[in-house]
Amino acid sequence: MALNRARIAVDAMGGDYAPDEIVAGALQAQDELGAEVLLVGDPAAIEASLQRHDRSSDEVQIIASEGAVEMHEEALTGIKRKPNASINVAMNLVKQGEADGVVSAGHSGASMASALLRLGRLAGIDRPAIGAVFPTMNPNKSVLLLDVGAIVDCRPKFLEQFALLGTVYSQYVLGRDEPRVGLLNIGEEACKGNELALRTYELLQNNPRIPFVGNAEGRDVLSGDFDVIVCDGFVGNVLLKFAEAVGNILLQLCQDELLQGLDERDLDHVMPNLKRLKQRIDYVEHGGGLLLGVAGVCVIGHGSSHAMTIFNAVRLAKEAVDNRVIERIQEKHLVEQ
Amino acid sequence: MALNRARIAVDAMGGDYAPDEIVAGALQAQDELGAEVLLVGDPAAIEASLQRHDRSSDEVQIIASEGAVEMHEEALTGIKRKPNASINVAMNLVKQGEADGVVSAGHSGASMASALLRLGRLAGIDRPAIGAVFPTMNPNKSVLLLDVGAIVDCRPKFLEQFALLGTVYSQYVLGRDEPRVGLLNIGEEACKGNELALRTYELLQNNPRIPFVGNAEGRDVLSGDFDVIVCDGFVGNVLLKFAEAVGNILLQLCQDELLQGLDERDLDHVMPNLKRLKQRIDYVEHGGGLLLGVAGVCVIGHGSSHAMTIFNAVRLAKEAVDNRVIERIQEKHLVEQ
Repeated sequence: MALNRARIAVDAMGGDYAPDEIVAGALQAQDELGAEVLLVGDPAAIEASLQRHDRSSDEVQIIASEGAVEMHEEALTGIKRKPNASINVAMNLVKQGEADGVVSAGHSGASMASALLRLGRLAGIDRPAIGAVFPTMNPNKSVLLLDVGAIVDCRPKFLEQFALLGTVYSQYVLGRDEPRVGLLNIGEEACKGNELALRTYELLQNNPRIPFVGNAEGRDVLSGDFDVIVCDGFVGNVLLKFAEAVGNILLQLCQDELLQGLDERDLDHVMPNLKRLKQRIDYVEHGGGLLLGVAGVCVIGHGSSHAMTIFNAVRLAKEAVDNRVIERIQEKHLVEQ
Repeated sequence: MALNRARIAVDAMGGDYAPDEIVAGALQAQDELGAEVLLVGDPAAIEASLQRHDRSSDEVQIIASEGAVEMHEEALTGIKRKPNASINVAMNLVKQGEADGVVSAGHSGASMASALLRLGRLAGIDRPAIGAVFPTMNPNKSVLLLDVGAIVDCRPKFLEQFALLGTVYSQYVLGRDEPRVGLLNIGEEACKGNELALRTYELLQNNPRIPFVGNAEGRDVLSGDFDVIVCDGFVGNVLLKFAEAVGNILLQLCQDELLQGLDERDLDHVMPNLKRLKQRIDYVEHGGGLLLGVAGVCVIGHGSSHAMTIFNAVRLAKEAVDNRVIERIQEKHLVEQ
């Protein structure tokens, strides 16, 4: 465990609600999680935001950057054209050892590109993956799905590497001694699937360092039977966004249908339950995705992140730092070289 | 509209709960929907099942078949090795004009293979697709997702054909004059996606017979903004099974969380609402998938179909027959030949 407080560089300029929601979530994380937050962005904008939150610039470190990669920009071009953009400055802090991790809700392609260029890939990893932690039916168990959008045309060996990354993450961050690793597929049997799944199945089955237990169908993702599920970034991204939306839709349906005709006394009894239900199924509260496979901790949040999401993203980054997930992956010499 | 009652051949031997649940659902459909049901299977097994339901064999037509393709069998091999299997006999009824459509909850690969071999593909269609109708946030609007499992390694032109099939289905069965067709993808912009999505986008955009409105992200599937969404069968299958499971999981969560600490009076008020909610989100009630692109109406149900699912599957088949969806597709000369 880290002897010092984890230092998390937060990209204050990234995201639809930057800087106000980002600053609010980052401060809350610093207050409540014991992380040290470094706000990266335009100092004037950050200070104005701090004032709006009745906070002082003495309470948090501000690291100056110039501009940000905009959503409409091509990721790599933006990263290169703006070397002092907030995401680049944040990554540099990690590279220079001045921060232990980065959180950004900005252009996710740009975050990935910046991480790859500035931090580099871990040995034995061809492509990084974004891992998303989903709640499952089992309140005490979550599942890591990866990749959810980094690499949309995967080769079997990429998925094999994702499985190795996921295994270590699950062991050291999610605390699963013997994680159950699955391959997202359209059937349970080894003979099922598309070309990618069929070839990946073989690799996973023959790799002694992967605790592979077989195929996971769509219905198994939230069952709690798997700790890690690998898939290509196209499928994972569609699934992640569907899952987020369906949570919200079902909460809406609950409100529409369940509260009909209830009187005040009923509502007094039901509303606290509805609120608890909301907390359990609201994916937004579960933070962002961890970029696994680069040489540093990097959490990629939604563009639409509000303060609570940023708070959870900082927590995710802090957990990865405290549990030394990057070092663990390196120690494991994950992939034969 | 058909002047005669739609005649639906139901594979009484297919599915985890065959024949009892199949027979029950088929009879209910005949009773309530005004469809004429032909139960295909082992006559003794069907008659025993009818007895268990306190029904007589005078009430329904029974068509004798021998055996069924088992779940563990390879689809094409099973179809060929057992020419008189229930699914083959059911398809033959359609081919010979003695039935207007088929419903089976048996081996879905076998159903597809039997349909392709016996009914053949429609002109201009290289591969059939299974279409699944999802409820959306808008109670009056559903969305057709295809393919949900027929073809797991698609080429762009297959998805283009799926879009054409979906357009006609949406127009004539779901009653959308100007259906909004989307491509399942990881972002809204035309430049987003994997190789397949990028190339398909171009085809869809340049085909004047497809009312293509752009990319649909995972979050858009249930929004009601799209009438038809095309994707390859791998992604579609994962999404379908995830959606089915998530409905059940959330209902379970609702029951776990929402009813806590409620007294009898509260429960009296809340339970009818919960039941209504259940009906809205229970995908199982929405029946099976329609196999589009073959020269006949064929509904592929879940292996785990209970009577209510079979009832809805027969309804789906009947709607396709009544709305002459196969003829409409043929009339449209869908794809240049």
